[in-house]
Amino acid sequence: MIKHYSITNEAKFSFSNNALFCIGTGRMGLALHKAYQDQLKYVQDYIHFSHIRGHGLFSDDMAIYQEYKDEIGNTIAEYNFTYLDMVMDSYLELRIRPFLELGFMPEKLASGDQTVFYWKGNVTPPKTYEGWTSLVQATLRHLMERYGKDEVVNWPIEVWNEPNLSAFWKDADKQEYFKLYELTAKAIKDVDKRFKVGGPAICGVDDVNWVKDFINFCHESFAPIDFITRHAYGTEEPERIGHYGYQELREPEDLLRELQITRDIVDSYEEYRGMDIHITEFNTSYIPNCPLHDQNVNAAYIARLLSTLGDCNASYSYWTFGDIFEENGVPFTPFHGGFGLVANGMIPKPTFWTFAFFKDLQGKCVHRSEEAVIVQAQDGSYRGIVWNLVKNTEPDRNIELNFTLPMSKECCLLVKTVDEKCCNPLKVWHDIGEPAYPTSAQNELFRASAMPAVSTERVVVDKENITITINLSKNALAYFEVFPVDQKSDRGYVYSK
Amino acid sequence: MIKHYSITNEAKFSFSNNALFCIGTGRMGLALHKAYQDQLKYVQDYIHFSHIRGHGLFSDDMAIYQEYKDEIGNTIAEYNFTYLDMVMDSYLELRIRPFLELGFMPEKLASGDQTVFYWKGNVTPPKTYEGWTSLVQATLRHLMERYGKDEVVNWPIEVWNEPNLSAFWKDADKQEYFKLYELTAKAIKDVDKRFKVGGPAICGVDDVNWVKDFINFCHESFAPIDFITRHAYGTEEPERIGHYGYQELREPEDLLRELQITRDIVDSYEEYRGMDIHITEFNTSYIPNCPLHDQNVNAAYIARLLSTLGDCNASYSYWTFGDIFEENGVPFTPFHGGFGLVANGMIPKPTFWTFAFFKDLQGKCVHRSEEAVIVQAQDGSYRGIVWNLVKNTEPDRNIELNFTLPMSKECCLLVKTVDEKCCNPLKVWHDIGEPAYPTSAQNELFRASAMPAVSTERVVVDKENITITINLSKNALAYFEVFPVDQKSDRGYVYSK
Amino acid sequence: MIKHYSITNEAKFSFSNNALFCIGTGRMGLALHKAYQDQLKYVQDYIHFSHIRGHGLFSDDMAIYQEYKDEIGNTIAEYNFTYLDMVMDSYLELRIRPFLELGFMPEKLASGDQTVFYWKGNVTPPKTYEGWTSLVQATLRHLMERYGKDEVVNWPIEVWNEPNLSAFWKDADKQEYFKLYELTAKAIKDVDKRFKVGGPAICGVDDVNWVKDFINFCHESFAPIDFITRHAYGTEEPERIGHYGYQELREPEDLLRELQITRDIVDSYEEYRGMDIHITEFNTSYIPNCPLHDQNVNAAYIARLLSTLGDCNASYSYWTFGDIFEENGVPFTPFHGGFGLVANGMIPKPTFWTFAFFKDLQGKCVHRSEEAVIVQAQDGSYRGIVWNLVKNTEPDRNIELNFTLPMSKECCLLVKTVDEKCCNPLKVWHDIGEPAYPTSAQNELFRASAMPAVSTERVVVDKENITITINLSKNALAYFEVFPVDQKSDRGYVYSK
Amino acid sequence: MIKHYSITNEAKFSFSNNALFCIGTGRMGLALHKAYQDQLKYVQDYIHFSHIRGHGLFSDDMAIYQEYKDEIGNTIAEYNFTYLDMVMDSYLELRIRPFLELGFMPEKLASGDQTVFYWKGNVTPPKTYEGWTSLVQATLRHLMERYGKDEVVNWPIEVWNEPNLSAFWKDADKQEYFKLYELTAKAIKDVDKRFKVGGPAICGVDDVNWVKDFINFCHESFAPIDFITRHAYGTEEPERIGHYGYQELREPEDLLRELQITRDIVDSYEEYRGMDIHITEFNTSYIPNCPLHDQNVNAAYIARLLSTLGDCNASYSYWTFGDIFEENGVPFTPFHGGFGLVANGMIPKPTFWTFAFFKDLQGKCVHRSEEAVIVQAQDGSYRGIVWNLVKNTEPDRNIELNFTLPMSKECCLLVKTVDEKCCNPLKVWHDIGEPAYPTSAQNELFRASAMPAVSTERVVVDKENITITINLSKNALAYFEVFPVDQKSDRGYVYSK
Repeated sequence: MIKHYSITNEAKFSFSNNALFCIGTGRMGLALHKAYQDQLKYVQDYIHFSHIRGHGLFSDDMAIYQEYKDEIGNTIAEYNFTYLDMVMDSYLELRIRPFLELGFMPEKLASGDQTVFYWKGNVTPPKTYEGWTSLVQATLRHLMERYGKDEVVNWPIEVWNEPNLSAFWKDADKQEYFKLYELTAKAIKDVDKRFKVGGPAICGVDDVNWVKDFINFCHESFAPIDFITRHAYGTEEPERIGHYGYQELREPEDLLRELQITRDIVDSYEEYRGMDIHITEFNTSYIPNCPLHDQNVNAAYIARLLSTLGDCNASYSYWTFGDIFEENGVPFTPFHGGFGLVANGMIPKPTFWTFAFFKDLQGKCVHRSEEAVIVQAQDGSYRGIVWNLVKNTEPDRNIELNFTLPMSKECCLLVKTVDEKCCNPLKVWHDIGEPAYPTSAQNELFRASAMPAVSTERVVVDKENITITINLSKNALAYFEVFPVDQKSDRGYVYSK
Repeated sequence: MIKHYSITNEAKFSFSNNALFCIGTGRMGLALHKAYQDQLKYVQDYIHFSHIRGHGLFSDDMAIYQEYKDEIGNTIAEYNFTYLDMVMDSYLELRIRPFLELGFMPEKLASGDQTVFYWKGNVTPPKTYEGWTSLVQATLRHLMERYGKDEVVNWPIEVWNEPNLSAFWKDADKQEYFKLYELTAKAIKDVDKRFKVGGPAICGVDDVNWVKDFINFCHESFAPIDFITRHAYGTEEPERIGHYGYQELREPEDLLRELQITRDIVDSYEEYRGMDIHITEFNTSYIPNCPLHDQNVNAAYIARLLSTLGDCNASYSYWTFGDIFEENGVPFTPFHGGFGLVANGMIPKPTFWTFAFFKDLQGKCVHRSEEAVIVQAQDGSYRGIVWNLVKNTEPDRNIELNFTLPMSKECCLLVKTVDEKCCNPLKVWHDIGEPAYPTSAQNELFRASAMPAVSTERVVVDKENITITINLSKNALAYFEVFPVDQKSDRGYVYSK
Repeated sequence: MIKHYSITNEAKFSFSNNALFCIGTGRMGLALHKAYQDQLKYVQDYIHFSHIRGHGLFSDDMAIYQEYKDEIGNTIAEYNFTYLDMVMDSYLELRIRPFLELGFMPEKLASGDQTVFYWKGNVTPPKTYEGWTSLVQATLRHLMERYGKDEVVNWPIEVWNEPNLSAFWKDADKQEYFKLYELTAKAIKDVDKRFKVGGPAICGVDDVNWVKDFINFCHESFAPIDFITRHAYGTEEPERIGHYGYQELREPEDLLRELQITRDIVDSYEEYRGMDIHITEFNTSYIPNCPLHDQNVNAAYIARLLSTLGDCNASYSYWTFGDIFEENGVPFTPFHGGFGLVANGMIPKPTFWTFAFFKDLQGKCVHRSEEAVIVQAQDGSYRGIVWNLVKNTEPDRNIELNFTLPMSKECCLLVKTVDEKCCNPLKVWHDIGEPAYPTSAQNELFRASAMPAVSTERVVVDKENITITINLSKNALAYFEVFPVDQKSDRGYVYSK
Repeated sequence: MIKHYSITNEAKFSFSNNALFCIGTGRMGLALHKAYQDQLKYVQDYIHFSHIRGHGLFSDDMAIYQEYKDEIGNTIAEYNFTYLDMVMDSYLELRIRPFLELGFMPEKLASGDQTVFYWKGNVTPPKTYEGWTSLVQATLRHLMERYGKDEVVNWPIEVWNEPNLSAFWKDADKQEYFKLYELTAKAIKDVDKRFKVGGPAICGVDDVNWVKDFINFCHESFAPIDFITRHAYGTEEPERIGHYGYQELREPEDLLRELQITRDIVDSYEEYRGMDIHITEFNTSYIPNCPLHDQNVNAAYIARLLSTLGDCNASYSYWTFGDIFEENGVPFTPFHGGFGLVANGMIPKPTFWTFAFFKDLQGKCVHRSEEAVIVQAQDGSYRGIVWNLVKNTEPDRNIELNFTLPMSKECCLLVKTVDEKCCNPLKVWHDIGEPAYPTSAQNELFRASAMPAVSTERVVVDKENITITINLSKNALAYFEVFPVDQKSDRGYVYSK
């Protein structure tokens, strides 16, 4: 398949690149782990996200909420911020700020014993709301004392996670959530009015009703609300085999349509019109053991989403940066369909490069289509990302994209390609026998096979235009730059191949 | 061009892999530089050479030899080992030992003022031989005190550099060199008999006569001699333009024949038969500004040599590991035809991979030809290096090599390819405009384009044999491994592309 | 108080320095933590222990033991070594080997639900012993495959922890432990006869009977036994206040006498005479919240023990290297009476230096007393450690120790002092207000105040003897060296104060 | 000697702390050295200077200025910025900016062959001024292209070094210097008017006349001038023995008076009144082999100067940060009286701490005297530096300083002491025998003995005042802080010594 596009100076395209505002992470207690920190450092060195959001701030492995009995037998709360400080210190050292998710319930503060995940996050309402709001306030005040008020008030705060699922919030009790939300939001504003707080952090199940009712509740109760949050995933129900779940991709347009509805509901209220919506989780599959996550098709699918999600959302947080993650238990193998951009062993997966490429996509949009987005930077150079998304259910195809771009000087075309042949560590891992416990030499091999192929060539100018061609095999993702070249060879130097 | 080879268990091939015994370096004073140390660390991390040899141990920037006048006006020598210790400390920290080259002459100890190179190494005999031998002995005694006698006596010692050229030894005075050699060798053995000492460190000019006369001199004078040293380069006279020199490659066989003659002369003396010959310098071109060094053809040519040089030589020291080098002055650009395996900016050149690949070639040789050498490791796997050497004067060609190897289990073929398309940082540097002073982002791009392409595939066994095919474009170099695979998939895991 | 000692060449003293054979650690799952690894690296860089022993290898946070149901409903065990490899990789990278303690029981393999500690280690026997021995064997076989058989068979193995306490082993059931021991030891030897295995890992409660019965059991049942293990602590029962426990020190001699009895029991069996005894845990207090651990008196007390424990024990493992430790929950403050040699914030406590000093005590013992041990190294220099142990119940005192040592050349005396004034980070932390969450600047201050004071002076020789004086304030610990000086001043250099 | 001072809230003191604006360095070519960069990193990590100034930007080891002959025999200049970029990249990575000193003369551009120093800086005027200004402009333009215009125009530029000495400028030819200054300053402003340029960079010889004449020249010629530069040293003529020079300290007041005269001359011109004066070099001794530099007295003397120099100078650049320095040749020993704050082997000298202490002296000055300067920080705490300067020619003395400070809350007094007993690596080096080539263990010992002694104590409030006492032995330097303490002990925690 060959497609031709002509870019002209009159072209009118818009593109909002919020891809690096936030990234997801496994539960906060795992942020104490060395492997977690090493992977996060790797991600930050290459990509540099601004915020990080994950579960379990108040879960018991963080050890924040404690109780004891005083001499006369009263139960007294006390707070332990030893581990919280370790986590926050390490985040800030890596130049990433928390997007705080308030949850789950400390066991001693919980009204029940229902838990979620292998790591047993308690998902019941607090036994007393006063205990809960005191915990929230004490935590925020501690953070402000340690990191500075002016810094901490800029950390967005989200109340709970997916209360629309009974797995995450007892009975998916909507009124109970609204109560939690209102009391929590007010408690936060009591600490400092400048904090930004939002909800309802729902996923796609019964989402329309939840968003409507939540907005309406805020509207009527005057509960403070600074932004709306929700999640979005791109797959259907999984088929489970052994440790794994296999899923089909949804059409990207389906997912985008779902989000547009949320946008429309919010905008239907005058006082909330244009309010920020943060997609605090998104990915293709929503299970941490879906082989799709490790494949090249995932990279292309996410590129498709990143080209569009900024149209109506302030951020969209890929779930997650790395594979130190225990929701289903500890993975048995390095490639196991985990959410991470980086596999254990410090191996960037194809989707890692989707984000690394979008990092460099800054400038005026000159083209956007279903397989490409191109901007022109201030210095006149072009930067584009292109992909060839081929879902399992579709026939294989290669595509060739031709772009004619206005340009008056001799240029260089730089292309970085991520495809199933040149940048596919999963295949290498499979080909050498799917070792569960790779040696360090094997990990080095995986890393060597996980780097984009880089190529350059000089491009001829024809009538103040240049034409470039990008070949994309099945599920390929590519980044390109076209920039003017002003060669000044050293005295006597003659380049020859 | 397609070539077929069948490997059988009866095959008789020999292959001595001494590629990592020694590596060359610019003058020792440059070892004080941070960029030098960074490049050496990079080389050691990937390749790990055992020894390092370069000029200028006694040149004035090392500041070892000093003189002062005492109260009654006598000139007294004193020695300063401050910089020597810095250099040796850093070498040993990088797990590399010096192959000591004694030279050049400290200005204050010199009999004349003739110098060589931009950095002005004095190449005249000592004003007194007693001053010289005292300097040598004091230096060795200091090293033994600091690093331990048993360690230092294992550092090989070579007397001077290329005395057969008048540029390196005043008038190329053979008798004066023999005197220098004899007195120095005896002085060394006086310090400790266990030291190994050798010469005459000549290059290819009038080499037959020099080797004959030197061996004869040792034979007759009973001068101590533990090994023979000489140099070997693979190019003709250069044509000079501006900062550069352009050269044609010699036939590898020419160079190998030259070295065989040296071997034959040495072996013609009963007492010296089989004595170690160390090629203390070799490369394609012998000038530090020959663009050839940066090209892929260099990698293929050196592979050809490394497959054979061990037949009659104990070591062969590629000249040099890095491009911090000043013989012709300071380079104006990162790619400038320097000798280094690594270009400034920490960019591995194609030839870097030749050595990285030979590092892994350990085992029983099962095949050796003009474009390949293959060994079988103890675990039954095969490891090979193949190349497609196409000199400028020859027509372009691709070759396809088919090897049929005995093997009874399912296998994986791993190939790492270095060719003009996939691993050619010189081309990328040219394509983006030959920047003399690359930014750190440009250097990152060069490094990304300097990595071998890695691929794996499963290989089918047919009648206890497998057949693998390696495609080599012009001047390509490739490393491959064929190893048995015993796949144990995790419960439920189904690999799919 | 002043004490004089004359050392003569005829002096007969013995001293076995096994202080660095093993060090304790919190549960193995904490070895995944970054702060744990950072502290262990700090300890290894300064002290370098050979082995490390801690609880929780099989506890659920290590995630090794898993079960699933197959199609026909049978429960099948499967093993997950992902985290085990991370821990072992990191240990070996820090050049420390595990002293494997087999325990506690994975929840799914347990026969009951009794747990110990905040982190809930299950202390019940296995539901089936076959399940247990399969787990042990699978784990050892995995380790051998990853790290090499010849390496892993040298890792000592201890069966369970303190089965003589009902808190650690259900009902402190002696016969059940013997069964566990026998089956486990045999299962280990089935994997490889070269493994060394031992028990009963008891503490001081009813220890005489337990040791006797255990030895007797092995004697009669022919259960394999390569070494005996037990624990030793130097404090009485604690008084508890809030998060803390306060204890009095026992006389060191009491503790040593207790260990001598164990030695005597073992030696009373001909086949076990002289068998290695490993004290797999020792410290002053046995609770992780005893302020004693952070004080200077602890350093002096441990020095006293290290001077003697090697007399009848192959090793004695200080419990523990660092303060990432959760037995009583997560500590609320950096100084909290934790076991660690290093406090959170990377602050070496006084006892850290006890081990750092014993590291350098290699040579022939020339003096040992209740406050000193001195050796002469091969080069003739002396190295000593001295202390002034003043328990809370004793009157304060300073002591001055004079040693007259045979020496014929001018000497230098080097002293490193750790006392309550010069090396007492606990006091600095207290003086600045006992901050629970120190800033990085405060941690830097604590570290600066946690370094020994270093002093040197020239010592005069009088009749082939020198006399040195070491002043020790209350609970001071000092290391000294006396070594010959051969001053060679640089030309013209005149030292002046 | 005891001195009492009462601080009141009404006290009027001024203190300008410009101690960290600039630091000196050996010639720029040495900035390529690893040891140089390691030392600079150490200094920046602790102290963090803003600018760095040294000689030799245009000297031949930087290799910037080159010439060649074209086809018709004309000599053409070309510039090589390879090494300059390495140096500037490394400076900026260490967050330090150059204070550019333009000099010395490249050999090929020089009008004569007179040189200065062991490293042979050419000190003659250019053979053509056009060649010189082209070199200056090309260099600045290159820097602007690489590091950004807006960045580089903030790098101050000084023309030449000490032209009032014939050693540094042929014949100390004043008119020739004025010509150089004027043409250079104009050439700089031609590149970008925003550059700040200054001179005459003189030392104390005939300084009054030089300053007057220079100012007058600028006044009359309208030569651009943005600041005045000069040097200041605190010692008399040296007595030379072997490799060393021994000197007596001048009274600090002498030196300060000298600088006041310069200030007065500048201020006597209306258009120059209040113009910045940069002391681009200062120290006690002006020779790089004066043992004084390594002693504690140097630290006290420099503290005395830093307390006052900001009164009339915009900066004062200590000469130099480290001991990688070759003006007199390469040092034979680690302690050799070099200028550096850090001795080779990464050993901070006492004067290192003078700067580390002044770094923290920010706030409102509440006391300044001949032995102390104290500020009150915004949070109400006090920070002071005190010293006890005892020159060789004076009798020994200890002093005790008592300060009564207004304060209403319980306080902690923190003191960091640097004196001849507790922080004197020179003495330790001497005591162990003055080793010329220390082992790494010896260097570790020197570093351990080069750290300030840290102590804390609680201070009692009496009538809203506290009184603190600082004891200073001979040549001691101390930093103290007095800050309020608000102790919140953990539940149950009872601090005991």
